[in-house]
Amino acid sequence: MARNITVEQAGEAGTIAAIRSAAPSSLNGDDAAVLDSTTSNARQVCTTDILVRGRHFRFRYSSPYEVGVKAVMQNFADIQAMGARPTALLLAIVTPGDMPLETISELARGINDAATPWGAELVGGDVVRAEDLVLSLTALGELGGPAPALTLDGAGVGHRVIASGNIGYSAAGLDVLQYFGSRKSVPQDDPILQELVSWHCSPKLEVGRGTVARAAGASSMTDNSDGLVADLSVIAQRSGVCIDVDVEAVAPDSNLLHAAERTGCDPWKWVLTGGEDHTLIGTTDSRLPASYRPIGMVRRLDETDPDAPFVTIGGNRPTYTTGWQSL
Amino acid sequence: MARNITVEQAGEAGTIAAIRSAAPSSLNGDDAAVLDSTTSNARQVCTTDILVRGRHFRFRYSSPYEVGVKAVMQNFADIQAMGARPTALLLAIVTPGDMPLETISELARGINDAATPWGAELVGGDVVRAEDLVLSLTALGELGGPAPALTLDGAGVGHRVIASGNIGYSAAGLDVLQYFGSRKSVPQDDPILQELVSWHCSPKLEVGRGTVARAAGASSMTDNSDGLVADLSVIAQRSGVCIDVDVEAVAPDSNLLHAAERTGCDPWKWVLTGGEDHTLIGTTDSRLPASYRPIGMVRRLDETDPDAPFVTIGGNRPTYTTGWQSL
Repeated sequence: MARNITVEQAGEAGTIAAIRSAAPSSLNGDDAAVLDSTTSNARQVCTTDILVRGRHFRFRYSSPYEVGVKAVMQNFADIQAMGARPTALLLAIVTPGDMPLETISELARGINDAATPWGAELVGGDVVRAEDLVLSLTALGELGGPAPALTLDGAGVGHRVIASGNIGYSAAGLDVLQYFGSRKSVPQDDPILQELVSWHCSPKLEVGRGTVARAAGASSMTDNSDGLVADLSVIAQRSGVCIDVDVEAVAPDSNLLHAAERTGCDPWKWVLTGGEDHTLIGTTDSRLPASYRPIGMVRRLDETDPDAPFVTIGGNRPTYTTGWQSL
Repeated sequence: MARNITVEQAGEAGTIAAIRSAAPSSLNGDDAAVLDSTTSNARQVCTTDILVRGRHFRFRYSSPYEVGVKAVMQNFADIQAMGARPTALLLAIVTPGDMPLETISELARGINDAATPWGAELVGGDVVRAEDLVLSLTALGELGGPAPALTLDGAGVGHRVIASGNIGYSAAGLDVLQYFGSRKSVPQDDPILQELVSWHCSPKLEVGRGTVARAAGASSMTDNSDGLVADLSVIAQRSGVCIDVDVEAVAPDSNLLHAAERTGCDPWKWVLTGGEDHTLIGTTDSRLPASYRPIGMVRRLDETDPDAPFVTIGGNRPTYTTGWQSL
């Protein structure tokens, strides 16, 4: 690939060739991609997410490669939160004409590297020019066997609340970036800050935690994309229950406490309202799925009180409840 | 729904509620949508397309409802061009905050009305704010049974070239709009011009022509999205053949001749380079599928001549060859 050329100079064919070279798939290149099923009579699962530069990512903070990784992870988290296995991705890119082709290649390379451990491929897409830089990524997945999908409405009173992955790390990483102003200003000799920033810029999810939870009989699941309280509230509302989170189980760990000290932020805000960790959170009345930890209990919702909270922390109303808003 | 409010005023929940009200589906509303297959061991088919305001559509020309219809049709044309049946849609919207909520509702209503005759539903999506108005639509489809998908590389020497639908109508409609400057300036008392404009703004595809062609043993297929010569050239290149189009079969009809007279445009340009008709075009060495007409023959490619054209019109090089370019 020629260096230092823009997508406008590369044209549609050149830009698509750069993407396909960075994220190759034999399924790509026709009017639509045809996916062979690996499981007989599997149900299909699909979800889509948009990332807009300046709103969801900044190249001052994240490399194009990391943005590609993160875009895959947030889509695969949604597929996993149904208990399904991600199988394929479609990428639609809106880009200014003066965007370096290298940037688009790096985005595609991040997408490819993030998808590969899951056995998934980038199988198709579209590119078009406009003012904003926008990535619209669609993930497809497969739900094999007769067990139900892990929906939002399955939490029952007495079920344990469970989580697999970090909570609050992404928000902490963003506050670290904002505190120091740019990625390169974050102290290189502070591995904890570097880890939090890295988690914000390209969260790495453990492969297969969604299918494991479904196999172990989990009753509901979502991912921590908008904030712990906000996301658990959705499960609680849809299930008609109250979710009580155990204070000890989600208390800021030593990494978060360290970052809080450096930045002057309240680490509880990261834990309770910080999204984008894409940690799987859900409920079960069965055994604890591998790599999950208990973080609370499902209680009865006080239906006599119209203001009763759907989520409590150690029995009390959370000090922070807001979550990410797209509009 | 409250009148005259913007998406920013409605917020994320209000905007999603407006979309779901205009395009209801019981599959929508979880982390990802789960699709039950109607055919055992069906293969899944997926494709995505972006529409950007000012580049792919203008509200001066098209209503939001029509843009929704067109977005579905161009995606479903890709699904059909594989010989598959569309089953579901995902919609990601990037919108300025001051966009009337009514506009988003109308887009969704167009999507719903276009999808319904195919038995397909809008099953999920995402909304986010930015400067541009961008629709990213993903279509899923199903390929039942063991017959191969209708790929681009299946045309063989001696096969007939076939088409189902209008050719050149969308480009003629766009030139009519540009000639008169706006939709309402197009003469109301000229039903031919009105029909061409309507075809440009919201093409209506006949349901099921892709599956019919596959069942009838077609050998290759695509849709007329970038222009007849451009799209047939892709089949010819990928199949290693030359496609000769019959002059009589694609000659501008009386509607195109009328519009050409009114606007001073060359109707052959519409026929040969006008895309967005989303007419299915392909090849077959079997019987003519229902509602298709023959428009040419597949010839041997002159491999001794590196400049040999992949597409000829009545044995000659086309007078127009350019097609739509995204970048």
